[in-house]
Amino acid sequence: MKSWDTEIISVGTELLLGHVTNTDARDVAELLSKIGINVRYQTVVGDNPRRLADCVRIARERADIIVTTGGLGPTCDDLTKQVVCDCFGVPLVESRAEVDALYEYIKGGRRMTPNNLVQALVPQGGTVFHNEWGTAPGCAFEKDGKIVVMVPGPPVECVPMFRACAIPYLQRLSDEQILSHTLNIFSMGESEVDSIFAGEMNAMRNPSMAPYAKECDCLVKVTAKAHSAEEAEAMMAPVLREVRERLGDLVYGMDVDCIEETLLPLLKERGLHFAAAESCTGGEIAKRFTDIPGASAAFAGGAVTYTDEVKSRVLGIDPALIRENGAVSEPVARAMAERVRALTGADIGLSTTGLAGPDGDGVHPVGTVFVAMAVEGETFVRHLRLGTNRTRSFVRRMAGNHAFDMMRRWLTGLEVVPETLFRKF
Amino acid sequence: MKSWDTEIISVGTELLLGHVTNTDARDVAELLSKIGINVRYQTVVGDNPRRLADCVRIARERADIIVTTGGLGPTCDDLTKQVVCDCFGVPLVESRAEVDALYEYIKGGRRMTPNNLVQALVPQGGTVFHNEWGTAPGCAFEKDGKIVVMVPGPPVECVPMFRACAIPYLQRLSDEQILSHTLNIFSMGESEVDSIFAGEMNAMRNPSMAPYAKECDCLVKVTAKAHSAEEAEAMMAPVLREVRERLGDLVYGMDVDCIEETLLPLLKERGLHFAAAESCTGGEIAKRFTDIPGASAAFAGGAVTYTDEVKSRVLGIDPALIRENGAVSEPVARAMAERVRALTGADIGLSTTGLAGPDGDGVHPVGTVFVAMAVEGETFVRHLRLGTNRTRSFVRRMAGNHAFDMMRRWLTGLEVVPETLFRKF
Repeated sequence: MKSWDTEIISVGTELLLGHVTNTDARDVAELLSKIGINVRYQTVVGDNPRRLADCVRIARERADIIVTTGGLGPTCDDLTKQVVCDCFGVPLVESRAEVDALYEYIKGGRRMTPNNLVQALVPQGGTVFHNEWGTAPGCAFEKDGKIVVMVPGPPVECVPMFRACAIPYLQRLSDEQILSHTLNIFSMGESEVDSIFAGEMNAMRNPSMAPYAKECDCLVKVTAKAHSAEEAEAMMAPVLREVRERLGDLVYGMDVDCIEETLLPLLKERGLHFAAAESCTGGEIAKRFTDIPGASAAFAGGAVTYTDEVKSRVLGIDPALIRENGAVSEPVARAMAERVRALTGADIGLSTTGLAGPDGDGVHPVGTVFVAMAVEGETFVRHLRLGTNRTRSFVRRMAGNHAFDMMRRWLTGLEVVPETLFRKF
Repeated sequence: MKSWDTEIISVGTELLLGHVTNTDARDVAELLSKIGINVRYQTVVGDNPRRLADCVRIARERADIIVTTGGLGPTCDDLTKQVVCDCFGVPLVESRAEVDALYEYIKGGRRMTPNNLVQALVPQGGTVFHNEWGTAPGCAFEKDGKIVVMVPGPPVECVPMFRACAIPYLQRLSDEQILSHTLNIFSMGESEVDSIFAGEMNAMRNPSMAPYAKECDCLVKVTAKAHSAEEAEAMMAPVLREVRERLGDLVYGMDVDCIEETLLPLLKERGLHFAAAESCTGGEIAKRFTDIPGASAAFAGGAVTYTDEVKSRVLGIDPALIRENGAVSEPVARAMAERVRALTGADIGLSTTGLAGPDGDGVHPVGTVFVAMAVEGETFVRHLRLGTNRTRSFVRRMAGNHAFDMMRRWLTGLEVVPETLFRKF
């Protein structure tokens, strides 16, 4: 089976200067790996025709597929098509459809300049990828047993075009389907997950299993290569089942970006709304949940009670309670959750109060957070000790994760503050 | 003057698979450009000795300085030092100091394995960069007129080591100092800024001036190369003054990350607190401001009033006002800002109500937001029309920017809702 070694060449002086991060190379590599095409090299070169031509010649020697990102636009810096086609001896011809599309695009009043029309030049005999996300089309051609794919540089154009146009174009080369599923795990580190599965974590097997760490989250990624999607799914199924069995209810989702994403359907299903009273998280819970389109179906709102005065004025927390226990305390967390629930009329009230740092309060260490959830007739509190060496953003994000996890566990009938989990905190 | 062309080679299969973004290459490139060293190429290659050796041979032909990131750790994948030194015919020798440092590091109880000791091997006659941020040391050597620098891959080790060790090592090569300043501009696009300065935007001049676009922001970066920092600053001063004069009060800061960062000192200086009542931004304003350490000195808190019911229950907005005008309206925005100010006792009340999408309300198009600011005796409202083709995150972020900009303009004595600015919205 042919391996289709691939090189990604990203063109742009702004990348070389470190002004911009090369997310295109990452995203293109990830999309290619999903269809079984191996990226062997990534190269970045500036908007310089001689150096770009040298890179294309090197890539032609060591790769079967060359993917370029960037340099397809209308400015004089944009020379990828010209240089690449020149290296392969492929002439550029005007695409009538792309000329029309450009005239359509600028109808609003802008003037058509010769520079703009350069974007409509495409490799003779090649395939044109019309750009629905911007103006410069992408393209692909085959020559001398090599395949060349060119896509624009802006990530908002590059990634959707690569997914929609380049992947189907390349898919016919591969007789493999690579599929992955990711299990999302709450509150367990990468090394801990690794040690539970000891020798079974192996990126070389098929299906493979590997742990990944995100800032406040750990994932287990299971990947299978097969001749069909069905076969790949069937190969992954027992591995996924095994991970779920071993990690139990710490697995909060599959193929989701974040814990809050799993909550919207759970809440909607039961017609429940929640509210949040946030002190140390300062809007993190509300912001993250309302990042999800349609959040209003399950989120009522809440209060950001950053000062003691606002805790009393907005939520009606008794100032004496704060004086006696301190704002960072279990009784205040409990009262905040209960009060925000009553005030908003929501079914569930969440709250956080703690120390995100860098300054402490002289009583608790930085990283101390009380997270509470009030429901009809009952209030739960988790006392987190996240460590003094953590960043402000880690503490805030982790406190938000715990609030969401309490809601997840309650909604799915699990113990809300499990003893075993809390020995660590 | 020699140009010291540089190539960065990043080693790691996880980069090729797209699991990880190559932020090291960006950060190293940026640090190099600040001392006048030009990065000409960046290459990514997997943990494969043959392919890495090929990349090193290519880099040796086309660059004067080779910087490698990654592959210095204790696992069998980590082979950068061995391969690079082999290519240059430089033997590896054990560093006594690094062996001692490793024994010191594992004192806690871990066992010293032969693999761990491999980390203490360094190029004969080279310079060792002790790793204060992890275990694997970096190193550098000169051979055949080329300079090789190797640093570890994890960004938390790579970047501080490069800054603290590699930059001083390389600085002696360069008789140039490159310094930059960035002016932050509110509510003007990259192309508009470009057209105001027409021919003056030129990345090739010294000092150079170039516009950059961020998601909701535009920057003008001015850079000067000189023999000293003082000389560079003196060269930039008139250009910075000129930009400030031409763009006037749209410039909200210099060398800052975001508009909210400029507000904390302005508010603290006057001893003022603000509060926010957020509908469509759903906690964005509170979250962004409290991301700043020490935010409590100027932020009281506020309410996230995502539903109409919560607008009335928490803020006490008259339900009839919402019924008559709709929740997305100037009177409701105005009432929210005034009510949150009164409720929290803050000096300034901000509010947002609008449509972040993807769904509209049948009255206003998606991208409509009313942003209000209430101060003693006066309330200001901006009516934004951000466009129906914008993402939810863009609309929310931009609405937040406008709320912060209103406060900035009021605090610095500028017109809060300038006519000229609002023709566009």
